[in-house]
Amino acid sequence: MFNKPGGRMNYVRNAWYVGGWSPDLAPNGLSAIRILGEPIVLWRTSQQVVALADRCVHRLAPLSLGRCEAERLRCMYHGLLYDTRGQCVQIPGQDVIPPGARVRSYPIVDRHSWLWVWMGDPQRADEALIPPAVGLEDPEWILGRGQLDYQAEACHINDNLLDFSHLTYVHANSFGAGPSFAEERPRLVPLERGVRFERWITGTRGPPGRSTDELTDNWSTYDFLIPGVLLMWSGSFRPGMAASCNYERPDYSQALRGVTFTSQAVTPMAERSARYFFSWGPHRHHGDEALRDFLMKLAAQAFGEDKIMIEAQQRVIDQTAVPSVMPTGHDRGVMLFNQLVARLARAEAAPSA
Amino acid sequence: MFNKPGGRMNYVRNAWYVGGWSPDLAPNGLSAIRILGEPIVLWRTSQQVVALADRCVHRLAPLSLGRCEAERLRCMYHGLLYDTRGQCVQIPGQDVIPPGARVRSYPIVDRHSWLWVWMGDPQRADEALIPPAVGLEDPEWILGRGQLDYQAEACHINDNLLDFSHLTYVHANSFGAGPSFAEERPRLVPLERGVRFERWITGTRGPPGRSTDELTDNWSTYDFLIPGVLLMWSGSFRPGMAASCNYERPDYSQALRGVTFTSQAVTPMAERSARYFFSWGPHRHHGDEALRDFLMKLAAQAFGEDKIMIEAQQRVIDQTAVPSVMPTGHDRGVMLFNQLVARLARAEAAPSA
Amino acid sequence: MFNKPGGRMNYVRNAWYVGGWSPDLAPNGLSAIRILGEPIVLWRTSQQVVALADRCVHRLAPLSLGRCEAERLRCMYHGLLYDTRGQCVQIPGQDVIPPGARVRSYPIVDRHSWLWVWMGDPQRADEALIPPAVGLEDPEWILGRGQLDYQAEACHINDNLLDFSHLTYVHANSFGAGPSFAEERPRLVPLERGVRFERWITGTRGPPGRSTDELTDNWSTYDFLIPGVLLMWSGSFRPGMAASCNYERPDYSQALRGVTFTSQAVTPMAERSARYFFSWGPHRHHGDEALRDFLMKLAAQAFGEDKIMIEAQQRVIDQTAVPSVMPTGHDRGVMLFNQLVARLARAEAAPSA
Repeated sequence: MFNKPGGRMNYVRNAWYVGGWSPDLAPNGLSAIRILGEPIVLWRTSQQVVALADRCVHRLAPLSLGRCEAERLRCMYHGLLYDTRGQCVQIPGQDVIPPGARVRSYPIVDRHSWLWVWMGDPQRADEALIPPAVGLEDPEWILGRGQLDYQAEACHINDNLLDFSHLTYVHANSFGAGPSFAEERPRLVPLERGVRFERWITGTRGPPGRSTDELTDNWSTYDFLIPGVLLMWSGSFRPGMAASCNYERPDYSQALRGVTFTSQAVTPMAERSARYFFSWGPHRHHGDEALRDFLMKLAAQAFGEDKIMIEAQQRVIDQTAVPSVMPTGHDRGVMLFNQLVARLARAEAAPSA
Repeated sequence: MFNKPGGRMNYVRNAWYVGGWSPDLAPNGLSAIRILGEPIVLWRTSQQVVALADRCVHRLAPLSLGRCEAERLRCMYHGLLYDTRGQCVQIPGQDVIPPGARVRSYPIVDRHSWLWVWMGDPQRADEALIPPAVGLEDPEWILGRGQLDYQAEACHINDNLLDFSHLTYVHANSFGAGPSFAEERPRLVPLERGVRFERWITGTRGPPGRSTDELTDNWSTYDFLIPGVLLMWSGSFRPGMAASCNYERPDYSQALRGVTFTSQAVTPMAERSARYFFSWGPHRHHGDEALRDFLMKLAAQAFGEDKIMIEAQQRVIDQTAVPSVMPTGHDRGVMLFNQLVARLARAEAAPSA
Repeated sequence: MFNKPGGRMNYVRNAWYVGGWSPDLAPNGLSAIRILGEPIVLWRTSQQVVALADRCVHRLAPLSLGRCEAERLRCMYHGLLYDTRGQCVQIPGQDVIPPGARVRSYPIVDRHSWLWVWMGDPQRADEALIPPAVGLEDPEWILGRGQLDYQAEACHINDNLLDFSHLTYVHANSFGAGPSFAEERPRLVPLERGVRFERWITGTRGPPGRSTDELTDNWSTYDFLIPGVLLMWSGSFRPGMAASCNYERPDYSQALRGVTFTSQAVTPMAERSARYFFSWGPHRHHGDEALRDFLMKLAAQAFGEDKIMIEAQQRVIDQTAVPSVMPTGHDRGVMLFNQLVARLARAEAAPSA
């Protein structure tokens, strides 16, 4: 279903996908999700987090309907018991356990408040490839969090996040970036596992709802990383700052106000089905819980606008016999990222891989 | 998906399909519909009505989620701007506009309170082929209007309208045509673009709810026209009128009462999906708004009865491996019309067309 | 759709399927159901019960939307009239009735409060093959009844009923069989049209909610019969009874208490769609209406637990590219029954059949 060569639905398997919010998985708790079409149960014991194929070897009942028994997980259909490696260690009414009685185990890491699941070759699972997100518990930031399910292919959500010119249109009534925003292009920097976007907007009052009387130079930058993770920092500086730092990245400690951070992650669940995870909030020197709540309310509105547009786009694509796109100048980031995805997916499919 | 040779789902493309009620599309308003599977946005500027493919050339977002800017329509995903011919005239952040940046434009005519969309070769769009319906604003008639969506193929609704013997059964509790109605056949007249039905019922008191003490000769006639438009006139005359006009069409000015008119149009939206538009009401000499409201209430009941039957029929067809029908004598109109559709569809598919 | 050779969805056609509860079909009443994918109308005249293909020969409208006219059934689309053999006997507006104007008639028997429909060759319909269920009106038993629709293949429900070790897990909070229950295997006896299960549990207090202070030997046995009918008897006896009757079937008249009976029937309606019928209650010497109501409430809880598990299992199977199962020791009954189904289905498909 996924990774059809040449198709739109190419995703990289050797990557860390966000399977859920860490605080949503309590000790001795279970959580079900599909990633790249595969049903997966996330399981936290008192010792560790575990990701297993959510499918008992016996009759394919989901283990996510099971019962946590310390470091064991029992399928609650006919009682098969599994250890944290996915090995079946007990079959009620039967003494011998076939060695093949084992479900696939996925590498999983609990970091930055997200549960990262490695969908590719377990031998190649490398924690250094986990995007450097910021967790909810980070003392520097005051972050809120949320998530949203899409009836759309994850790649369309990625494309949306790779071209912020949509802020002018989709978010005319929320983020309110204004027409000039869509006229200018951000600076792009290809990264080994993604694309970096940088943008100075000089002499501005900020967006509606967060505007001020004084003019500032506003900086924002985000990395969009494999498999579909956005990490973004913003801040407002004194007029002239953009020029004085040569339109490069400023020193955040000199910001006047508005330093915020947002993490966003797009997880392909199945065909035309994706989950979108996000956090947002101010740096502790630039805001408080009230500002965080304001931003999360704004995010709820804006991300709802994205969802309406992207799900409608998906329906039109589905109603089109031979869908084809016409890239614009703003699509350079989209193309860089998708070429990277295609290259990595091809390499995975190659015989040597 | 449509116009499969030999299949049931043949529809004529070179025809005017009703895309909506004209009064429902305000100036600077947009409306989305699918016709023959194609997503279409209907758009009224201050000058004209426009029908465009509802699919931005950039990333296939629907233009029906766009913004009207006088004689321009802006896609609200990334801001591409279109003129009324479907030509893209602005791409934010980009100076050059590729000449191929154009969406399909469909001929459209606002007439008889309906928005007629030509789905075939634009060169062959001929306004003379628009069925001569009667608009809501016609001073001769006092008409109400409605519409209903079906989860069924349009052709099954057409078939229903081409055989009124169902009035005796489907509408036993609403129109109440009585058993004898289904025993007699109307006179059929093949037309160039449809079939005409004519029927005198002599010495009758009229249907339940509209019956009278005096006996009358009741006349009704309807044309069922390509692609699926019914235009029907009825009236009650003095006993003997049928014979005295040789069972031909009477002079409506001699009607005693009950002169009414109804327009009905069936639009195939997609597979197993259709929209049914209808008006009904008395001639101004034979009724008033109260009678119109009575008739519309009756129509709501009766057309709901049709919907239950036809959607159930569709489900049975879908559950049948090799569906086949057994035509009866009442199917002559059904067959005449469907042969006409097949002949026109074949001609369209021929190389010379 | 059904009976694909080698596939999972093999069902026997030459068998009696439960089409509904007899008391739910009143005289001059109609009821629609699909069995093995085929739409069927059940019809009770004042004289008999009838099962016909639910599909008018004219335009495939369902006869279950029709009108009962004594020993005739009228399609309420265009009025075709059928007799109880499925022969069309009247076509409004047409004198001649083609001899082929006939819908398939299915053998049907009203017995044990169920309407049994024979889906195979009518020549081979043998009432002796109707499973010996117990009807609601049987004076020996005080039975309640219910039914439940599944979005799952009937075969998965059959499998569930063929391995009661799931009582320990699926029904931990309802039937409460306890862990030891799943450790022991019942005795299996292959039958000509099914599998018999027998089980003594000695020195037990009974399940939670129905436990007693005194210890008893508990007996239970059920037959699971083609096409998917479970008939089960249980009872509690004095300690030592199991041994004294050599662990064979006891004499129910010596039971101390808890003699109950349940009939359960699984009907495949369509792919991933099944209806589950059930009754349960005490013998009249071992309980009353209050106990019956207690048992039915327990059944509602427990059968809801089954439904959650089996529908979840179905979803996982659907999400698995190549689903395969790993049978355990408890699957012996499952395998015996499914081998029987496969053997009978193969015999039906053979040329001589």
